[in-house]
Amino acid sequence: MAAKQTVTPVEPLIIIITPTYKRPTRLADMTRMSNTLRLVPHIHWIVIEDDNYTVPYVEDILRRSTHIYTYVAAQTPAGYPKRGWYQRTTALRMLRNNTQSVMRDYKEGVVYFGDDDNSYDTRLFTDYIRNVKKIGMWAVGLSGGSLVESPKVVNRTVVGYKVKWGGKRKFAVDMAGFAINLNIVLNTTAVFGKSCRSGFGAPEPCLLEDMGFSQTDIEPFGLDEDAAKHDVLVWHTRTTQPKFKKDPSDAYDEFVVEL
Amino acid sequence: MAAKQTVTPVEPLIIIITPTYKRPTRLADMTRMSNTLRLVPHIHWIVIEDDNYTVPYVEDILRRSTHIYTYVAAQTPAGYPKRGWYQRTTALRMLRNNTQSVMRDYKEGVVYFGDDDNSYDTRLFTDYIRNVKKIGMWAVGLSGGSLVESPKVVNRTVVGYKVKWGGKRKFAVDMAGFAINLNIVLNTTAVFGKSCRSGFGAPEPCLLEDMGFSQTDIEPFGLDEDAAKHDVLVWHTRTTQPKFKKDPSDAYDEFVVEL
Repeated sequence: MAAKQTVTPVEPLIIIITPTYKRPTRLADMTRMSNTLRLVPHIHWIVIEDDNYTVPYVEDILRRSTHIYTYVAAQTPAGYPKRGWYQRTTALRMLRNNTQSVMRDYKEGVVYFGDDDNSYDTRLFTDYIRNVKKIGMWAVGLSGGSLVESPKVVNRTVVGYKVKWGGKRKFAVDMAGFAINLNIVLNTTAVFGKSCRSGFGAPEPCLLEDMGFSQTDIEPFGLDEDAAKHDVLVWHTRTTQPKFKKDPSDAYDEFVVEL
Repeated sequence: MAAKQTVTPVEPLIIIITPTYKRPTRLADMTRMSNTLRLVPHIHWIVIEDDNYTVPYVEDILRRSTHIYTYVAAQTPAGYPKRGWYQRTTALRMLRNNTQSVMRDYKEGVVYFGDDDNSYDTRLFTDYIRNVKKIGMWAVGLSGGSLVESPKVVNRTVVGYKVKWGGKRKFAVDMAGFAINLNIVLNTTAVFGKSCRSGFGAPEPCLLEDMGFSQTDIEPFGLDEDAAKHDVLVWHTRTTQPKFKKDPSDAYDEFVVEL
């Protein structure tokens, strides 16, 4: 029996870019995120460590995730205002320089910035992200001092944003609230640069403006005007960093942990 | 073709008891936990709401979990020192009074108290909990002011506990750090009673003493003395409750959220 070795996938590949860094709750966060992603097919998981070295125990989690992954170290250089910007930038450049090695036999891709401490309903991937043709947007729970931040939709078109923080931004959206078709990523050089300001302006609208998007490009997901209630499919959660009683650090030598 | 309708499962059923309550991060936490459990077969998920009513949106998550579940409301009456005790007690009584409706065709079961905000590696269920014959114990990350709390094992026997909090308790173990074979649960009437003190003594060792366990009954998992490093398979994590900017509560009427 000759098995057909390569079948071109019909589905678009979801490329998830996750910046990460060492902290006591990280292995727990990454394990939970990995569990969620194991339920979704056709993913390439790009994880960028904010350090000079990758961490073997994080790579073990990625290996168990059952997905193709890329795991590299890229320590934030001086001048970047916030954690994660340089790592996302590194991933975007890698994607542009090594598109084939990420895409393999896939014909289409969608890029999503998925942080390791957020909470994801798997339908975010299967019903929203997988279907993004240009730029998709949706509601994000527990973001910006709101129970929900969301694009405002009239006649199936995004006309503004329901947010309590930074409502005057051109794209008032959290990192977890949008995904971009790979073709658009590949046709620009936009990154999360040092010039993207922290706080009011940035970095999400900075990237999206640099990519040349206008409001009419946005495809809203899960915001049908005739629905009685909308499910929130992604939450901007944070895991509390515990307070530890003082202890010699070698007390945990026999366990896989991070300080 | 006559399909065989009932096949007696060879695996023990894992009965997970999860107390829960309304809070802004709850739907995110339950979604993440449900994603993890979807990866593990042979589970019955008992969820007890600390309220007079169950919540339809929580039940939607349980329905999507792909597991058989039981979801009931049991508001904590006066006199219980901590959240969750009365709900776990309710679940234990239900299990004793309605064993057949939970067990169905399963011949063996294991009971685990799995809170909705903790982080679980799926191997906790497949490699540890599923194999508990009497009472199993293992390391818990980020518990009691420690990076890891763990039973102390010598010659494959638990001889004490490596903890920084409450080390003199007879069973110095977090709720996430043990599971009990159903037969033992059914042969006792032990519950998390009001007489179980909060703080130093309770409630875990109180329950385990009332069930008649002694130290020699404990089966340690994942603590082989010759291993170079042990993986932590469960973490006592907490999701930070966000601070919300003031807002009329009806602003979120169109989304499924909890205040």
